[in-house]
Formats: sequence, structure tokens, C-alpha cells
Amino acid sequence: MERVNTRLYVEDKLFEGATVGLDSAAAHYLRSVLRLEPGARVGLFNEREGEWLGIIDGLGKGWCSLRVKECRREIEAERDIWLVFAPIKRSRIDFLAEKAGELGCSRILPVFTRYTDVKRVNTERLAAHAKESAEQCERLSVTRVDEAVSLEKMIQNWPADRRLVVCAEFGEARPIAEVFTELLRDEPDAGLKPWAVLIGPEGGFSKEELEALSRLSYVTPVGLGPRVLRADTAAVAALSCWQAILGDGGMRPPKGTTPVTIT
Amino acid sequence: MERVNTRLYVEDKLFEGATVGLDSAAAHYLRSVLRLEPGARVGLFNEREGEWLGIIDGLGKGWCSLRVKECRREIEAERDIWLVFAPIKRSRIDFLAEKAGELGCSRILPVFTRYTDVKRVNTERLAAHAKESAEQCERLSVTRVDEAVSLEKMIQNWPADRRLVVCAEFGEARPIAEVFTELLRDEPDAGLKPWAVLIGPEGGFSKEELEALSRLSYVTPVGLGPRVLRADTAAVAALSCWQAILGDGGMRPPKGTTPVTIT
Repeated sequence: MERVNTRLYVEDKLFEGATVGLDSAAAHYLRSVLRLEPGARVGLFNEREGEWLGIIDGLGKGWCSLRVKECRREIEAERDIWLVFAPIKRSRIDFLAEKAGELGCSRILPVFTRYTDVKRVNTERLAAHAKESAEQCERLSVTRVDEAVSLEKMIQNWPADRRLVVCAEFGEARPIAEVFTELLRDEPDAGLKPWAVLIGPEGGFSKEELEALSRLSYVTPVGLGPRVLRADTAAVAALSCWQAILGDGGMRPPKGTTPVTIT
Repeated sequence: MERVNTRLYVEDKLFEGATVGLDSAAAHYLRSVLRLEPGARVGLFNEREGEWLGIIDGLGKGWCSLRVKECRREIEAERDIWLVFAPIKRSRIDFLAEKAGELGCSRILPVFTRYTDVKRVNTERLAAHAKESAEQCERLSVTRVDEAVSLEKMIQNWPADRRLVVCAEFGEARPIAEVFTELLRDEPDAGLKPWAVLIGPEGGFSKEELEALSRLSYVTPVGLGPRVLRADTAAVAALSCWQAILGDGGMRPPKGTTPVTIT
């Protein structure tokens, strides 16, 4: 497979001979940042048709059209892991969306808990970060971003077949690696089922919240060791352990892909 | 144990009745940011004497003196894990130092590899980030920051009893969780020995570098799954897995500590 230096997620249906138009942000990026010209090669992908080679047909201020050539990668089954988190301040929440994208989250859901300080969440900005990180890390899908809801509402609407790991600094909790390793031994396909990780706000969960969560049949409280981690660190640590032990940690990056230089 | 809202790392010897003077940055923080006054309680700690209660005796522009009262926490043995990484650009390298602090690294070592773009590393700034994160996460020690060296020099000076996990996106590598879980089974005290994790630059290692590293007796190349992770994400993912499986993931935060609200 010939290399491409740029991959873009597109909603359009991808097939040989299709014409794809980019939105103005993507067109601006190709034209004014990367300074690409007609004839340049770009990877185009989505979670339905996989990744295809696109050749720039034409581009101008705010527009770019590409002609789709051959398929570069077929779609693959992905793990279904959500990140549920109490909103934190701007630079750290942006970071969280980026990392959730890289760590293969299918969805992120902001939830307001008792000690959550942040009152509003710009889900569009988070979605843009998640999309960019999917484009850079060789995923074929993007992380969806839900609108923020209260913890009560999240619990009311929770799909009972989705297991929820709650990262708990205090109270009863078993070590995360022990929980996942034991589960993998007793139920080898556990990682193919729906999962989620829940991270509290910087002030932690309230005692009542943690107790209410622990009573839910689908919840397992886990501990992340002796250090009190920031919310963003806890999220990356828990997702990394999940992917490494239960998820797709045994897979390798697709052949013929280039490590993308991040600017 | 009564709570304190602020913990400071100090080099001074800590014992009952000792007087401790702060440097001007810490004094400014207590006086002008937290607006503390004489009589206020502060945690003081280092890796030799543990954590002690300090009471502010007096403070002014650029100075603060504290009287040391009782011991709050005895010192504990910590794991000995280094993070070796190719320098990346400013916001991401600061983040890396912060996370290495939170994830309990004893030391971080910047190394220049063939595809490393960044030419200079401000190790003082990294040390400040690492110290701040140790203060906030309930550690009793801080992460030391080495001066940057070339990869060749790092290999020349490497202590042969320190195992080195190399995160390799390409080439032969076994899944990180599999390597650690197997090792824990065959050698239960493996996590008490000296370890290090090596992360390449955004452009990856060169083929020659990866081959040279793989030939070293103390090196194990590991894979982090199918997504090509940014260097900072790869570092947090690898360190999190190491602590969870081989390190202190089975421990819980000290009793009586408060989740610190990060501003």
C-alpha cells in the first residue's frame, strides 16, 4: 500500500469513482496549511466503507473536491468502549477528547456530578478534537460526543448490558489490572462486549454518589493505585489498561502506514 | 490525620521543632495565591523523612518560614521506574513531565534520537512540573529530571540491571499487557526491580535504532495496540500499564488525604 501523509474522515459514501467534497475547514487545511495541489493523494475514511485513496481534483478558497480511487483498508470490527467523565476546565477537557480518540473510545459522555465545577461543555469543540485524533492515529472511525447530562439521568438511561468501570479513589475498590485480568481468564470474550469507564471530577465523587454507583449491577469500582490522579490522567490510565488487557492491545498498526509527524 | 489543603516538597530535614524556610516561588504561592496567614497548616514532605505538618510562623514578600509539628506519614518504599523519551514540543513535553510525576516515575531522561525535531530541553521547567504534580498527587518523592543525551550515550551509560521496555509501533513486539502479566506470573517480585520505559519521537525510531535497541539484553520491545499513538499518549499508556500490572496498582491512596482540587 502506497503511503499517504494525510487522512481525513468524511461522511460521504466512499467507492471507486465517487466524488467527495470537503467542508471548508478541511479544504482550508489541505490548501493553506499543507499547500497541496490538484493531483495530491489523500486518505479518506469512515466507519462504513473503510479507507480509500482520494486524489485532489480541484480546490479553492473554502472548497476542495476529490476523486475516490481504490480501497486502501477494509473496515474492521472495533471495540465498544465509552468514556464517561465529569467536565473539567478547557485545556484538560480538550486533551481528554484527543486521548479518547487515540485510545479508541467509541463515544464520550460528559456527566455533571455533585462536585463538578464546570457548568457548560462545548461538545462541538470536543468532537473536532476527537475527529482530528482519529485522523492522525489510523483509526477508521471517530469518537462520538454526547451532550452533557446529570449523573442521575445517565444512570436512568444506562443500557443494562454495558458494564461500567468506576474509577474510585476512596471506598471499596479492587485494583484495575486484577479485575480485568481475572475477567479475561474467566470470560475470554469479555472485551468484545459493550463497556464504559467513568471518571469523577477533580473534587472526586461524593460519598452518596459512590455508594449509589456501587449498588448498580453493571458497575465495578476499581482503584488506580496510591497516587491521587488528576481526572485527565485517570481517564487515560484506565482506558489504556482496558485496551491493553481486555481490548485490542494485541493488534499492531496497519502495515504500510506512516507514523504521522504531529505539528 | 487532620487534612491539609496544600502539600509542599522541601529539601530541608524534617523533624519536630525544625524551622523550614521556603523558596520565593513557594512563599509567593502561599501568600499571594492561597492568601494564607501565620498559623495556617501546610503539609511538608520529602523522600527521606516523609510528610510532616508545618505551621506558618511568618511570611512576607518572597519568604515564608514554618515550624514543623508532628509526622503525618512515614516514608514508604517506592517503585523504581524511569521514563526515557525523545523530546517533543513545549505543551506536550510539559504534560509528559506532569504525568510522569503523577504516575510515580522516579526519573525522566530526555534522549535525542535520529528523528527528534526538538533540539533543546528546559530541564528546569520540566522539574518544576514534575514537583508540582508530586505535591498534588500525594507522593512522598519527586521525579528527578536528567539532562538530555543522545540515544548512543544513553545506551553506553545504561545500568545493565535495569530492564527497558521499548514502545515500538513497527517491527517485532509483543503486546505490553501480555509481557507484563507473564512476567508477574513467572517472577512475582519483578516490579520491585529497576525498570524503564522508552518512547520514541513523533516520527518514530529509525529502523537502525529499533534494531540496535532490540539487540540489547535488557530490552523488551512492546506494542501498544493498532492505533499509532502520539508520544505523550504512548508514555502515559505504557507507564499506566506498568504500574497497574507490575507496579503499585494494588495500593490505595493514603487515608485522611483529600482529593486536591486542581485549579
